[in-house]
Amino acid sequence: MSSPFRITATDGGARAGVLETAHGPVETPVFMPVGTKASVKAMLPSELRDLGARIVLANAYHLYFRPGAELIHELGGVARFSGWDGPVLTDSGGFQVFSLLHTATRIDDEGVRFRSVYDGSRHHFTPEVAMRVQRLLRSDIAMAFDECPPAGVDRARVEAAVRRTGLWAARSRAQPRAEGQLGFGIVQGGIDLDLRRRSAEEIVGVGFDGYAVGGLSVGEEREPMLETLEATTELLPADRARYLMGVGDPEGLIEGIARGVDMFDCVLPTRLGRTGSALVPGGRINLRNAAYATDGRPLVDGCACPACTGFSRAYIRHLITQSEISGLRLLTVHNLHHLLDLAARARAAIAAGRFADLRAEVAGSAESKHHESVAKASRLPDS
Amino acid sequence: MSSPFRITATDGGARAGVLETAHGPVETPVFMPVGTKASVKAMLPSELRDLGARIVLANAYHLYFRPGAELIHELGGVARFSGWDGPVLTDSGGFQVFSLLHTATRIDDEGVRFRSVYDGSRHHFTPEVAMRVQRLLRSDIAMAFDECPPAGVDRARVEAAVRRTGLWAARSRAQPRAEGQLGFGIVQGGIDLDLRRRSAEEIVGVGFDGYAVGGLSVGEEREPMLETLEATTELLPADRARYLMGVGDPEGLIEGIARGVDMFDCVLPTRLGRTGSALVPGGRINLRNAAYATDGRPLVDGCACPACTGFSRAYIRHLITQSEISGLRLLTVHNLHHLLDLAARARAAIAAGRFADLRAEVAGSAESKHHESVAKASRLPDS
Repeated sequence: MSSPFRITATDGGARAGVLETAHGPVETPVFMPVGTKASVKAMLPSELRDLGARIVLANAYHLYFRPGAELIHELGGVARFSGWDGPVLTDSGGFQVFSLLHTATRIDDEGVRFRSVYDGSRHHFTPEVAMRVQRLLRSDIAMAFDECPPAGVDRARVEAAVRRTGLWAARSRAQPRAEGQLGFGIVQGGIDLDLRRRSAEEIVGVGFDGYAVGGLSVGEEREPMLETLEATTELLPADRARYLMGVGDPEGLIEGIARGVDMFDCVLPTRLGRTGSALVPGGRINLRNAAYATDGRPLVDGCACPACTGFSRAYIRHLITQSEISGLRLLTVHNLHHLLDLAARARAAIAAGRFADLRAEVAGSAESKHHESVAKASRLPDS
Repeated sequence: MSSPFRITATDGGARAGVLETAHGPVETPVFMPVGTKASVKAMLPSELRDLGARIVLANAYHLYFRPGAELIHELGGVARFSGWDGPVLTDSGGFQVFSLLHTATRIDDEGVRFRSVYDGSRHHFTPEVAMRVQRLLRSDIAMAFDECPPAGVDRARVEAAVRRTGLWAARSRAQPRAEGQLGFGIVQGGIDLDLRRRSAEEIVGVGFDGYAVGGLSVGEEREPMLETLEATTELLPADRARYLMGVGDPEGLIEGIARGVDMFDCVLPTRLGRTGSALVPGGRINLRNAAYATDGRPLVDGCACPACTGFSRAYIRHLITQSEISGLRLLTVHNLHHLLDLAARARAAIAAGRFADLRAEVAGSAESKHHESVAKASRLPDS
């Protein structure tokens, strides 16, 4: 099986590369904005392109319910439906099935029975259903159906999830995919290194076009998360793209890249934007703070994003406090730029053999008090 | 007093012209998007420019309270503050003082005492205060402080408003203005032709750079509104710009132009966008309607706006029903384009001597059942 991914440069554990998709190549490391319901919240596709986004996420669970996978299929697939002319990665719905509040959820080896968060109707998600939905959505990358337990559960629960994730990976992989659609497997195992090893061996044994590390954005502490990540990426084939699911705060992105991760997604930039906060070097600022009421400076001095080149903190604060949509738009644009630009800088740094400098810069500007809150905000689903 | 306005073409009662402002020339007839709180809701300045907007409104009442006129003054005026590099017209606050729900409102010849809708604090608006606020805002066009009674009040009340509007016009005109700032007077008088005549004579007697017809977007029926408008514009000097306040639905725009009006503003396009509706020839459609769920066509076939060239009704309906901000953004963009494009077509038609054709086209496509609701939605303040 030939790999759709090729490495163009390495620098320590960090890699730069290119992932070929049906909608064109994606340079890595890459940050993928999250468009849960086929829309990156408050953004239009042309703006995402202008910011340098090359691939976006969409979610099979939500689109299955609204507006429906068959409709999106009839209207040309999720990319055409949403006016985005680049690649789309679809999450399988596994994370949502386990993390959203459902009544009467029942898990067995066949799949998961639950009630829809939209209307309470009964549904049964299986690997076969999840792959069929993604086939109908015609995404460029389809994720295997997995079981993702929350942080802090006992080992037996994690072990059961690893076992099922293995079974479901094989069944996911056996399903037909849309033309040109890549299939990625997901490694689970919490922060238990033995279970991670077992899961990685099983998932790699099935054989996928790329591999994701799941279950590391569900509430665990940063240090064990990074240790687990490092141990896991070492078990994944070097010639396949690696995707760290749900992590994409600035330090998480850089530390993930340092451990050989190529792809990231996170709701942090869009969620922070909608709640009135801007990412700045070392942390974030909340524009509702009265200190910004008369502040004529941009969000970040020297930032090249459309928000920072055209508007002051005072104006954005005015918009946010008055509930003007343009305020959260400007913050969302800035925050997405912050992550997309950081990934672009990482690509350039790896190619130039200077990734350690960038890593030190990000670590140096990080203030520990900000870390915690930024990392926490990144761990919630975007809906 | 030389006029900042010159007529470049006439066609029947319709005129095309150019209004010179401190931020450059504005071709008329012109539709002015409403940016009540120094932001056209859900839009950024670059998008307004791309849609062909050349002048926007802002509101002295709201900006006086939030974020404060002094702050905007310190940050360079309302245009620079909001990132808009073109002309801004500021409403004086008169309309808001009389139309928003205030406790303890008391009107006398000095001004209006009321409590702020923001925090209940006591304030006293006078012509002097209203002009000072607009001077601090450094708008290109400052409106005189007027009394604008609602439709349906008795003649004595309208007559009192006309008398005060005359007194206040003289006091407004006597106030200093920002450098290059034009001052417009406002004619009141309800739908009473005698009172309109009296008001027009008084306001023209004071002498302004341009003249507005106020009080015709407060709930009256269309026919008496247009009759009153026609009688009023005939009393205004031909060499000054004429502004019909608060009217800007497609038919109102065209019928106003036919009666010699040059400038229009209306919250209709932005308000309809936020509530899920799109302007279409002859009326509007509500995207929440289930009929659009599988509709792969654009909002309006052949429309050149960014929403219609990139997205289907089905996608926009999906966004609206899922409360995605991008949905109301796309509808707002389309609706603003609809009015801005109609004004541009009117300018071209007048220059070509074919305005009657455009007027017939708009009247012909209008379905009476849609008129009523469109006209109603246009009569509310945008906040």
